Amino acid sequence: MLTKQSEDFSKWYNDVVLKAGMADYSPVKGCMIIKPYGYAVWENIQKAMDIKIKELGAENAYFPLFVPERFFKKEAEHVEGFNPQVAWVTHGGGKKLEEKLAIRPTSETVMYDAFKNWIQSYRDLPLKINQWANIVRWEMRTRLFLRTMEFLWQEGHTAHATEKEADEMAQAALKMYRDFAEEYLAIYSISGKKTDAEKFAGANYTLTFEALMKDGKALQMGTSHQLGQNFSKSFGIEFLDEKGKKNNVWQTSWGVSTRMIGAIIMAHGDDKGLVLPPKIAQYQVVIIPIISDTKVKSFVSKIEKILKDKKIRFLVDNKEQSPGWKFNEWELKGAPLRLEIGPKEAKENMITYVLRDELKKNSISLKQFNPEKLLDEMQKRLFVKSKKFTEDNTREAKSYDEFKKILKEKGGFIKAHWCGDAKCEKKIQDETKATIRCIPFEKNKVGKCIKCGKEGKEVLFAKAY
Amino acid sequence: MLTKQSEDFSKWYNDVVLKAGMADYSPVKGCMIIKPYGYAVWENIQKAMDIKIKELGAENAYFPLFVPERFFKKEAEHVEGFNPQVAWVTHGGGKKLEEKLAIRPTSETVMYDAFKNWIQSYRDLPLKINQWANIVRWEMRTRLFLRTMEFLWQEGHTAHATEKEADEMAQAALKMYRDFAEEYLAIYSISGKKTDAEKFAGANYTLTFEALMKDGKALQMGTSHQLGQNFSKSFGIEFLDEKGKKNNVWQTSWGVSTRMIGAIIMAHGDDKGLVLPPKIAQYQVVIIPIISDTKVKSFVSKIEKILKDKKIRFLVDNKEQSPGWKFNEWELKGAPLRLEIGPKEAKENMITYVLRDELKKNSISLKQFNPEKLLDEMQKRLFVKSKKFTEDNTREAKSYDEFKKILKEKGGFIKAHWCGDAKCEKKIQDETKATIRCIPFEKNKVGKCIKCGKEGKEVLFAKAY
Repeated sequence: MLTKQSEDFSKWYNDVVLKAGMADYSPVKGCMIIKPYGYAVWENIQKAMDIKIKELGAENAYFPLFVPERFFKKEAEHVEGFNPQVAWVTHGGGKKLEEKLAIRPTSETVMYDAFKNWIQSYRDLPLKINQWANIVRWEMRTRLFLRTMEFLWQEGHTAHATEKEADEMAQAALKMYRDFAEEYLAIYSISGKKTDAEKFAGANYTLTFEALMKDGKALQMGTSHQLGQNFSKSFGIEFLDEKGKKNNVWQTSWGVSTRMIGAIIMAHGDDKGLVLPPKIAQYQVVIIPIISDTKVKSFVSKIEKILKDKKIRFLVDNKEQSPGWKFNEWELKGAPLRLEIGPKEAKENMITYVLRDELKKNSISLKQFNPEKLLDEMQKRLFVKSKKFTEDNTREAKSYDEFKKILKEKGGFIKAHWCGDAKCEKKIQDETKATIRCIPFEKNKVGKCIKCGKEGKEVLFAKAY
Repeated sequence: MLTKQSEDFSKWYNDVVLKAGMADYSPVKGCMIIKPYGYAVWENIQKAMDIKIKELGAENAYFPLFVPERFFKKEAEHVEGFNPQVAWVTHGGGKKLEEKLAIRPTSETVMYDAFKNWIQSYRDLPLKINQWANIVRWEMRTRLFLRTMEFLWQEGHTAHATEKEADEMAQAALKMYRDFAEEYLAIYSISGKKTDAEKFAGANYTLTFEALMKDGKALQMGTSHQLGQNFSKSFGIEFLDEKGKKNNVWQTSWGVSTRMIGAIIMAHGDDKGLVLPPKIAQYQVVIIPIISDTKVKSFVSKIEKILKDKKIRFLVDNKEQSPGWKFNEWELKGAPLRLEIGPKEAKENMITYVLRDELKKNSISLKQFNPEKLLDEMQKRLFVKSKKFTEDNTREAKSYDEFKKILKEKGGFIKAHWCGDAKCEKKIQDETKATIRCIPFEKNKVGKCIKCGKEGKEVLFAKAY
């Protein structure tokens, strides 16, 4: 039996990840094994997002896993931020290495050393490179998908002639991500700027998109950084502009990871298990034959043909177990659309189906059966629900007391004013565990900082993963 | 200017890899940067092979990069074989680790520890898992794509109830690879068994497919191992059979890597540069507008529409450079089909085209233009050429003198008899640098070992990469 969300959300999460076969613990503490059912979701994410990344003008490439220590140290803020998280290779080929090698915690430094050679003139700009790769960041407290020592991600890295172009690129990447989350993951998110305390080590500023999980905690879904000329100055990435003048390039980097799978689980899942958005589920449809006889088999074949022609991903579950066992199993595994086909259905040319988010038995004739429409409607319902949940759980706090009360009793996003001082930000975090998730882009009324009373912008707070 | 193949094949290879933009050296000695033009080839290989892997019944998953030292040491032969090539992580998160971690040189050990938990009964078999991942093997003498410290690959890992099934699986994977090389890479290969000296560390036996490069040296394209119960005994992977009896599973593993890109370059390239098989080229067609006027542009748009409708990968090269410069550039980069479109072509509704392997100018009306057929014929021509080259460069040697003479004067594959003793194998290698590439599957006449004169099978020798 699955733990109930309301009883212990954290235990529910671990239970469902393991029991649905999404991932497994690894013998290396903090790493995870992504099992086929979870990896299929990642593959579907990759396929869809890769198209969007290429539409942004980026090309895929692959850079080394290892970053020499001297590179890693070139950008001062960057090394300070990432140093505590680095895994170091000190021995190779039976010998101690002369220079130790960092396993990439992100690829800015190893990529930009190459960019220096690839970029000479304004004609070489913009340069837009994307990489799908594994990343290692030493973590003490890990959670499957959400925070693991090794994870999979994509990282986009671009170089531009002007600051304006870099600003636009950082925004375009963020918009692409947010659209992707809406369209494919059916997750509503809020976007904005990170505070200086929360920005990427080495960036001028960091943009983020944040989503609310069902326990009322926020999850950072991904980030997009405008790196200014910080790395291009440390690495000497220069170009001759049209007038023959030397300049440093302006850069961006942006990434999302297998963490998004954790978001899918926590944004849509329920007490029965996963609820996978149809667009990224391994099997969009699961057919469960109630008994195994010729008529049922031949009717199932008819349905299979329809699904194949429509390029819908499906599985016929012919395992030994009982139909009831299979219904539970596929509810746990979150298959969007389940078809139950027995002798009655075969005889009457009818399909009995259950949509995972509704869990109601429906009946329809084979002729009228439109799986694309059913899946499409479910995908949309999930997004509407995610948006409504976020709106219902976004509250305003006018005072620090009200802020703490909402945090304690309800959670969710809290809109509140903040003076802009990192000290107030830190005090609020220390006292309440809530952090500023983002400074929304929209202009908003100036108000009094909930901590110190000085004037400041309205920002979005939450406890976060 | 490119070095000529006949002058210095090795220098030609490096030149063409770098100048065509396939890969770049990395600041970490022995690693490489796979540039977008080279990575696109890898992506096309992945897309096509992934379908074939799934047809074998394998599902994709992802296992950790790190292998704890104690795991790595469990299978005695395995650790002995791989130990000298391992990179070790000794520090992480600012601390010295209690147990050092190997960066996977291959994933048998880390996967099979999980298999132990996933497999309980005959119902869980066969288990077939594939992983696309990066691999690290410490190498002293590296060559871009051919032998690098880090490379990308796929590794299939399976577990079966019987030895026979494992034998069949190892053969099926090998056949899949060889078919893939023929169909997609247009490379003819010879398959067979490795000698014990050359087999995978921990396998019962290793199957291989080997192709001949244009300099007469052989390249091991990939391998498929029958692992017997060696790992399942070390790792305790047991299952209850249908009679309730406990047994160890029988296993296989098989892999191909980015090395195949090196094979494509050396099997098809010429003095003008790369010759990419259409099925895996980033751009199957490159359109070069001779001048930029309205009529040419509108004619090019017509051609673009045709290519788009046929889902052919193409590029219109609108760079600033002259047409002549672009012809050379795309010959260097090995684009299969080049279209030259000027005012004459636009006026007469004609296409001037050059196929990369023929380098002849042809002219055809837009109406009769059939790019699919042109590309398909080129793909087939490349394979026929590869097969003929291999056959023309496979020779028999009846004596050790003859063997050495062929090696010195011609290279290529040499069929010769070998007694089966590892000592003769070693002596031949030490004296001539030729190795036994494989023991072909076909039954062949027994003859006298070229080294010691004892009776033995006919095997295939060559100098190899």
